[in-house]
Amino acid sequence: MIQMVILGAGNLAQHLYTVFRATEGLEVVQVYNRSQKALSYFNATNTTTSLKELLEADIYIIAVADDAIAAIANKLPFTDRLVVHTSGSASMHMLHKKNRRGVFYPLQTFTKGVKVDFTKIPLCLETGEKADFKILKSIADAIGSNSYKISSEQRRALHVSAVFVNNFSNHMYRIAHEISEANNVPFEILHPLIQETANKIHTLTPYMAQTGPAKRGDQKTIDDHLEKLDKDIHKEIYTLLTQSIAKTYGR
Amino acid sequence: MIQMVILGAGNLAQHLYTVFRATEGLEVVQVYNRSQKALSYFNATNTTTSLKELLEADIYIIAVADDAIAAIANKLPFTDRLVVHTSGSASMHMLHKKNRRGVFYPLQTFTKGVKVDFTKIPLCLETGEKADFKILKSIADAIGSNSYKISSEQRRALHVSAVFVNNFSNHMYRIAHEISEANNVPFEILHPLIQETANKIHTLTPYMAQTGPAKRGDQKTIDDHLEKLDKDIHKEIYTLLTQSIAKTYGR
Ligand SMILES: NC(=O)c1ccc[n+]([C@@H]2O[C@H](COP(=O)([O-])OP(=O)(O)OC[C@H]3O[C@@H](n4cnc5c(N)ncnc54)[C@H](OP(=O)(O)O)[C@@H]3O)[C@@H](O)[C@H]2O)c1
Ligand SMILES: NC(=O)c1ccc[n+]([C@@H]2O[C@H](COP(=O)([O-])OP(=O)(O)OC[C@H]3O[C@@H](n4cnc5c(N)ncnc54)[C@H](OP(=O)(O)O)[C@@H]3O)[C@@H](O)[C@H]2O)c1
Repeated sequence: MIQMVILGAGNLAQHLYTVFRATEGLEVVQVYNRSQKALSYFNATNTTTSLKELLEADIYIIAVADDAIAAIANKLPFTDRLVVHTSGSASMHMLHKKNRRGVFYPLQTFTKGVKVDFTKIPLCLETGEKADFKILKSIADAIGSNSYKISSEQRRALHVSAVFVNNFSNHMYRIAHEISEANNVPFEILHPLIQETANKIHTLTPYMAQTGPAKRGDQKTIDDHLEKLDKDIHKEIYTLLTQSIAKTYGR
Repeated sequence: MIQMVILGAGNLAQHLYTVFRATEGLEVVQVYNRSQKALSYFNATNTTTSLKELLEADIYIIAVADDAIAAIANKLPFTDRLVVHTSGSASMHMLHKKNRRGVFYPLQTFTKGVKVDFTKIPLCLETGEKADFKILKSIADAIGSNSYKISSEQRRALHVSAVFVNNFSNHMYRIAHEISEANNVPFEILHPLIQETANKIHTLTPYMAQTGPAKRGDQKTIDDHLEKLDKDIHKEIYTLLTQSIAKTYGR
């Protein structure tokens, strides 16, 4: 049985709590949060708002806002225990070295209240000590997640990559939504295309999957699109991404 | 029984042929192409490379390269028949007015050889005459597609939108692939995030689904990402899209 304490009561803390509680071999012995309110979610387990009252456990998972990770790690009233954070961008060394350190970063976007399937979530694991890696790996295996050994520097690259595939792709959807609304076309017409675009990369590399006027060097269509766009920022984005695609294909 | 002639033997022509042949009430009586080679795919039906030999049919579907649509429509050796093209960007008026005109545009990206499910493909329909709209709608219904009445101007807006959600999102995946490769991280780690990003818009608008440093105004993370990016064009894209997201959320 791996005994765990979760520090934080937000979006990720709730998802982790739910999956850990449902998994044999894992036990959440306590949840800590700086404030009481969010702790009501965790009423089936021991909760506390005082770091001094933290119970003994095999692992302490800090799932708080990135800015707050270091301060909490510094204030932990014990040493030589395994303490991990869950952030994609923070280095492992942000955790105070009085404890054994690690990272347990789920590479996914979570939405409060929307159930997640951890068997489809890749976990990026890192530890200072080899033996601790086995503990993180056991947890990942227990909840059925694929896990990867990822250094802090690699995780930083993944975090930037995640901004491109998630934040920026979503912004492409947003722009398409604006354009279609301005032309009285229901945005839902584009749903199947969005889905298929994401599906394609399971069988083709993005390099192979690319299509469209920028790749073909079809200047007539590009000009027509730029003329159709009303907002300057949309024109700017269209132009820059068209250039970047053209460059990718040696145009 | 609706009798159809397909003009063109490429990617879309093959997919249309396959679904029409499998559908009760539709009959492909002939496939035309300028050259013989690609016609071998259609050997279960009559084929020709001569426009003069075109058979009589209820509808002629021109599925050739956008540049070639007008020339073929001009050369058709008959009048007052229903002639449609399948392009997202070409106006209906690109077709010669000696025939009844229309558009049958499937809003999806097709890959040669990869089976498509037409029940998941939205069809954008347009005709010059009302009675002809019913014919296009019957075809759409027969193959189980959702269809929408879309004017040439609306279709043009959809085509630009499709570039954003398909071409540009795919380019975001490509950039993430480059970054992860440069850091020896397998790109597949990002697959679930790509999938979830696309899935989210079925329950949330892109506006609601947006997350990340640009939306939060988290300058520390933005600076860290820009420092991590090696290529100037990646930095430029990151900066512009971050600005655009910030603007969307009133920052
Ligand atoms: N959400 C995701 O999709 C996702 C995915 C992967 C990794 N992560 C990582 O998971 C961690 C938590 O993210 P989240 O999305 O769960 O955040 P969240 O929903 O905003 O929750 C933030 C938590 O941090 C606490 N907190 C904030 N500022 C604090 C401070 N100054 N001192 C002490 N506690 C503080 C909050 O306490 P209060 O309740 O008192 O405000 C709350 O418990 C972050 O490192 C994030 O990078 C998130
Ligand atoms: N592919 C898609 O994802 C997709 C989606 C929606 C709509 N569309 C539209 O469907 C139409 C066909 O696209 P596609 O992807 O099927 O193209 P494709 O696979 O490249 O096939 C092009 C077809 O056009 C013919 N063609 C090219 N130039 C010609 C010319 N100058 N004169 C006569 N015939 C010519 C080709 O004949 P040869 O065999 O002799 O070269 C071939 O039959 C286009 O209007 C396109 O916008 C395509």
